[in-house]
Amino acid sequence: MDQTIKSRPMHAQSVRAISECHTLATFTEEPAHITRRFLTPPVHAVHTHLRQRMEALGMTVQTDAAGNLRGIHQPANAPAKRFLIGSHIDTVPDAGPFDGILGVTLALELVEIVQERQLPLSIEVIAFSEEEGVRYGIPFLGSRAVAGTFDEKLLAYEDADGIPMSEAIRSFGLDPTQIPSAAIEPQQTLGFLEIHIEQGPILEAEDLQLAAVTSIVGQTRGTLTFTGHANHAGTTPMHLRHDALAAAAEWITAVETHANSTPSLVATVGKIFADPNATNVIPGTVHTTLDLRHPSDPIRTVAVEALIAQAQSIAQRRGLTAQFTQTMNEPAIPMDLALTANLTAALESTGLPARILTSGAGHDAMILAARIPTTMLFLRSPGGISHHPAESVREQDVEAALHVAANFLERIFATINNT
Amino acid sequence: MDQTIKSRPMHAQSVRAISECHTLATFTEEPAHITRRFLTPPVHAVHTHLRQRMEALGMTVQTDAAGNLRGIHQPANAPAKRFLIGSHIDTVPDAGPFDGILGVTLALELVEIVQERQLPLSIEVIAFSEEEGVRYGIPFLGSRAVAGTFDEKLLAYEDADGIPMSEAIRSFGLDPTQIPSAAIEPQQTLGFLEIHIEQGPILEAEDLQLAAVTSIVGQTRGTLTFTGHANHAGTTPMHLRHDALAAAAEWITAVETHANSTPSLVATVGKIFADPNATNVIPGTVHTTLDLRHPSDPIRTVAVEALIAQAQSIAQRRGLTAQFTQTMNEPAIPMDLALTANLTAALESTGLPARILTSGAGHDAMILAARIPTTMLFLRSPGGISHHPAESVREQDVEAALHVAANFLERIFATINNT
Repeated sequence: MDQTIKSRPMHAQSVRAISECHTLATFTEEPAHITRRFLTPPVHAVHTHLRQRMEALGMTVQTDAAGNLRGIHQPANAPAKRFLIGSHIDTVPDAGPFDGILGVTLALELVEIVQERQLPLSIEVIAFSEEEGVRYGIPFLGSRAVAGTFDEKLLAYEDADGIPMSEAIRSFGLDPTQIPSAAIEPQQTLGFLEIHIEQGPILEAEDLQLAAVTSIVGQTRGTLTFTGHANHAGTTPMHLRHDALAAAAEWITAVETHANSTPSLVATVGKIFADPNATNVIPGTVHTTLDLRHPSDPIRTVAVEALIAQAQSIAQRRGLTAQFTQTMNEPAIPMDLALTANLTAALESTGLPARILTSGAGHDAMILAARIPTTMLFLRSPGGISHHPAESVREQDVEAALHVAANFLERIFATINNT
Repeated sequence: MDQTIKSRPMHAQSVRAISECHTLATFTEEPAHITRRFLTPPVHAVHTHLRQRMEALGMTVQTDAAGNLRGIHQPANAPAKRFLIGSHIDTVPDAGPFDGILGVTLALELVEIVQERQLPLSIEVIAFSEEEGVRYGIPFLGSRAVAGTFDEKLLAYEDADGIPMSEAIRSFGLDPTQIPSAAIEPQQTLGFLEIHIEQGPILEAEDLQLAAVTSIVGQTRGTLTFTGHANHAGTTPMHLRHDALAAAAEWITAVETHANSTPSLVATVGKIFADPNATNVIPGTVHTTLDLRHPSDPIRTVAVEALIAQAQSIAQRRGLTAQFTQTMNEPAIPMDLALTANLTAALESTGLPARILTSGAGHDAMILAARIPTTMLFLRSPGGISHHPAESVREQDVEAALHVAANFLERIFATINNT
């Protein structure tokens, strides 16, 4: 395997995996943009395209009741337990062509590689119907169904046009009452691999191609409101002010300083509103948000508490109040240790550094991780750009990902046979 | 005079001056709120009410072409040169009852006092039609006409309903082409006194009732835009961010620190917009404003330059850009030294400290100061509150203002007789 990158036997496949992403990008709700929400009409075209490819590979194909397209490659001599590979086929509005989709086109290339190598390993490729949460405000609809954690209350949710999710599913030709039957049997499953673009700048900054993901970070979100006094910007001297924006600014700097000094912590104040928001009036109230993520839940919890305390101390010193309201508190989701160790071993076998990363964003993998051993492989994102038409991948990184994933699957096969 | 406050001979007059403000507050565009823009229908009622009062005092009354109501008290034995006293009768939306108006009701009480004391001094009371700039976005319409600096191009300006200023003037029964004749003859004028609430918290904080104003501060306003890169709040580590809000926050703190360490400087960041302004996205662009005021123009200019340089240095260090656009650059307007000295002397004669203040807000006085000797007397604003229904005055402060202004007018009379 060590020489494969140099001889490039998977070059043609990596080119095809990329070209397939561009083809699938043409199936969109908006001409000239890539926008494909959960079960909207262009999803039919994506399914038709992927189904043809799956059938050409001799796979058994079905669409489950949550709209996930699922192709099974089951060699006659292979154990019945399947290994799952996949990612999502929905997009954010005005998306790039690779977020999600690349994990599906690469999964199909991997089936072809497994077939060429005559590896007796059953593989199920899943093109998840929904991950971004755009249409119904709730992400991971496809993977929740596969994991068996889809809450049927979601079916009553309505999209921006007032269409309930159950009706969207029916309009697509599916039966929402059958969603429970989309769930995998964990006992019949070996594990799940999701290949995805990093959507961040770390690999590029380190001049690396790939990384194994060790966990999806835990996340706290909340709003923080500073309340002081709105006053005349001309007639109120500095020492008699209770300026909510000056207080917020001091806190935003403290948030950044805290994150800079805590390894692996990211903390973001992304939103700000000042009231009355007039050039010549001292802001009386400022609303901000906090988005704080870390792979360790205790470190995250301590950081959030420290930043709230700091906001209150800043406010108190200035004669203001600070009020924090938590809106999200999601624990970190670790990837499976054994699977991830196989992935780092595969990186090294392929001649690449065994770089590990935590994922700062959520993925279908974190939903499946609750039920079955799961891991993720990240590809470098040029410019760190994602959720944007300029999102891209490098061909050599895609080729390296195929090599690593193929090596990983061989290790999985070897593991089954050794146990 | 030193005993007058104790014996309170002007108590009834101060009560009436306040009660008149409350009466005039009932003439409003919006029931239950005080809103009276330039030459809107309730201004007729204000004119009628004030004219009756002026005529009862034996004054000659006319409305000039800019809508200023002007009453002349000219004793038979008095020199023709007049001393002007007044303030404005328009309001901001949902205003308090004293901003402007109190300077008019007190002027009428002063005419009565001058009459009682048989002081041979000609006085013109002016109720300026417009100071706040609400209806046409341009302030000081009334005082510009009186100062002879009204630019006739303004007549074409339209209000929110598309009504040109010339039409608003005509609808009120006036002839806009006659505005030039509203201008005073500086040679025929002794000076101008405007009595106004402080609209700030300084006198209250110092437990003082009144202050003489030495100048209206100069003012710079501008917008400052920080441009970095919007990125994913989860996948972008701290050291690879170009966070426009973190940069803006550092600068807002620097603005406050600079103002805190520069005597008499006030600097305010009142407005802020972040883009894309989403909880989970690092802000790529932040637009802020700067409002900076100081009685010394050179100090103001140096401060603005220092803060722009600081913004650019913060931006550069963070890999962002900072762009400043100046939108206002108004020099400081000094009050007349001799008149203001008479006012501080009057404060002391009345048993009060000779506190001087600069005005952080613009006033009609600064328009008249360009043509004639002008000064202002400030009354304490409880809570520093103005431009708000909770705006108030204390009766004893109004009474003290009457004493001081009456003493001031005696000094003006003495000055004329001595020259």
